[in-house]
Amino acid sequence: MKNIYLLGATGSIGTQTIEVLRSLNDSYRLVSICFGNKLDEAIKIIDEFNPKLVCTNNDFNYNYLKNKYNNIKIVFGDEGLTEAATCKYYEDGEDIVINSLVGMIGLTPTIEAIKLRRTILLANKETLVVGGEIITKLIKEYDTKLLPIDSEHSAIFQCLEGRKKEEVKRLIITASGGAFRNLNRKELENVTIDDALKHPNWLMGKKITVDCASMVNKGLEVIEAHFLFDIPYDKIDTIIHTESIIHSMVEYQDNSVIAQLGKPDMRIPIQYAITYPNKEIFKLDNSLNFDTLNNLTFKKMDYERYPLLKLAYEVGKLGGLKPAIFNASNEEAVKLFIDKKIKFLDIETIIYDCVNKFENIINPTLNQILDIDKEVRNYVVNKYNK
Amino acid sequence: MKNIYLLGATGSIGTQTIEVLRSLNDSYRLVSICFGNKLDEAIKIIDEFNPKLVCTNNDFNYNYLKNKYNNIKIVFGDEGLTEAATCKYYEDGEDIVINSLVGMIGLTPTIEAIKLRRTILLANKETLVVGGEIITKLIKEYDTKLLPIDSEHSAIFQCLEGRKKEEVKRLIITASGGAFRNLNRKELENVTIDDALKHPNWLMGKKITVDCASMVNKGLEVIEAHFLFDIPYDKIDTIIHTESIIHSMVEYQDNSVIAQLGKPDMRIPIQYAITYPNKEIFKLDNSLNFDTLNNLTFKKMDYERYPLLKLAYEVGKLGGLKPAIFNASNEEAVKLFIDKKIKFLDIETIIYDCVNKFENIINPTLNQILDIDKEVRNYVVNKYNK
Repeated sequence: MKNIYLLGATGSIGTQTIEVLRSLNDSYRLVSICFGNKLDEAIKIIDEFNPKLVCTNNDFNYNYLKNKYNNIKIVFGDEGLTEAATCKYYEDGEDIVINSLVGMIGLTPTIEAIKLRRTILLANKETLVVGGEIITKLIKEYDTKLLPIDSEHSAIFQCLEGRKKEEVKRLIITASGGAFRNLNRKELENVTIDDALKHPNWLMGKKITVDCASMVNKGLEVIEAHFLFDIPYDKIDTIIHTESIIHSMVEYQDNSVIAQLGKPDMRIPIQYAITYPNKEIFKLDNSLNFDTLNNLTFKKMDYERYPLLKLAYEVGKLGGLKPAIFNASNEEAVKLFIDKKIKFLDIETIIYDCVNKFENIINPTLNQILDIDKEVRNYVVNKYNK
Repeated sequence: MKNIYLLGATGSIGTQTIEVLRSLNDSYRLVSICFGNKLDEAIKIIDEFNPKLVCTNNDFNYNYLKNKYNNIKIVFGDEGLTEAATCKYYEDGEDIVINSLVGMIGLTPTIEAIKLRRTILLANKETLVVGGEIITKLIKEYDTKLLPIDSEHSAIFQCLEGRKKEEVKRLIITASGGAFRNLNRKELENVTIDDALKHPNWLMGKKITVDCASMVNKGLEVIEAHFLFDIPYDKIDTIIHTESIIHSMVEYQDNSVIAQLGKPDMRIPIQYAITYPNKEIFKLDNSLNFDTLNNLTFKKMDYERYPLLKLAYEVGKLGGLKPAIFNASNEEAVKLFIDKKIKFLDIETIIYDCVNKFENIINPTLNQILDIDKEVRNYVVNKYNK
């Protein structure tokens, strides 16, 4: 039996996690969920899966659910989030916390769940980008598992299965190139959020779609891979692979490359992580049809075209607070872009400004990370939200 | 320390094995070699690696080496071959017999080596095609290892590392399509051995090059994969992949596909097998450069175009003597084609003739296999060598 604590139940990953849970047998039970505004969707999940605890950060939803469900604990906000990750209702089974929240609000609940030795399934990049040093230390200290849900990291995890880390020559993370991959820097000047949302291969949330177009997403993935697999940055490469069929690769020192392929369907890595170490039959779709796969293409990553990816490597290598500064400034800049307050290339300007402006601290505490996060966000909003 | 017994030292695989041994550190020692006619190459190997025993099936070479080397045991023919696989000169180290012979002469020495619990590295398909039932039974009985050297099977072996066989949905063996892949059946009528030898991706011997063009090679690989990995035929697929970069794949029941990629360089799977389970640094070439890989293509296998592949599945499923009949008739037909005695499509006629003519025996003995092999060969030579 596996007890599932699902943080971010109504987002893109959360919804697909629900689909996977529905397709699996009854050895998985949904203990708690967190959601934001999508009340109707949350109610559907509650009525179908009967969780013991539900968290929301919306006042109306909180009161509505309090009235509607007497036998379910309804909790609120950041504290509720941590409670959803740490509550205990069953003595038996493996406790699995799925962090599919957007942004860095997943950091604290993840840390608290690790301290309870729960298995962490991570679809939330920011947790590792911002708190990678702290999280990886805690994972070792509490001897628990951290499994990726991101398709690229799931691919790498699968390509590393049964093999020794010392034999890795490099990780090769594939990138679709995002919505603007056919545009040059000049043409990027006037693109809008509506253009960005036409992302070709994956159906995703707005924030990650913008991050794909700016290649920040790949930068966050590089930092995440560094922490997840304990591989130095100079052994992590990225490559453009437009079709999103090869989800990533590992090259070994004997020049053999192991790749993981599949349809661009997040439910596959979600199921992989939930059912790990077993591989259950995937019931939600047919498998990849090679007969109709015309071709798979590769293109060298262009760091001039995507300077934020280059910057991600740099902040990753610097460590300390720099990845948190990079992430916070990106999150706020993307919000401004989504709200049509800034242009696409202003995202770069804002991130560079912040990464240069705020000083680094090596081996920061959790509080120092949370503080710099707020500070950077305030700075961006005050300076750029006009 | 690993003791290497190299059957077929001067052929394509043998020569590349020597290159790999030269590039590795001194924890590998060449104990014995077998070769046929290429005396000069054999002498070079002997002088460099100082094997304890050398086998040849050429009278002149035998006498020449007897005179030249006093401190090396020189042996002859089929019996010598078995001696080369079973001789013992060192008390320490793992004994590894590399069977890179062409055709089915490798069967008996392989069986005798298994009985000594030696690790078998198999680049000789026919051994498993013809003797698969016997070999796999003996491997279990003597609890020893059988590792593939063939690029496709090495790929599958690597894709299965650390995973459970029960979770395999299917093996996907890639095929370059061979020298005549762009010709239709009509155009195949007048192709010659010289045309066939223009094989695009791999530098190989003549026999296997013809087998690639007729897709018999892929058929033999399907049967070999069945025995190597204990996977039923209906879970083994083939696909045309012209570039020979993805060497094969395994699809799991969770719809995740694991693939092994690399340059089309047999030294990579050779080194993998010799150094298994470790992955030593490959010193002989640079790694695969994805920046210059334009694209990888896939095409559905056409069993009408390649009827011998379809037939290979059928004889594989029938089992017993049928794969041996298929193999023996192919070997003799290919010889006739190489000697320009028959046309390319006559290979098909001959194999169909033999597979239909000779009756099957289920669970044959080794002697029954050796007998049918001779019988089929005699039949082909008498009937078709004009």
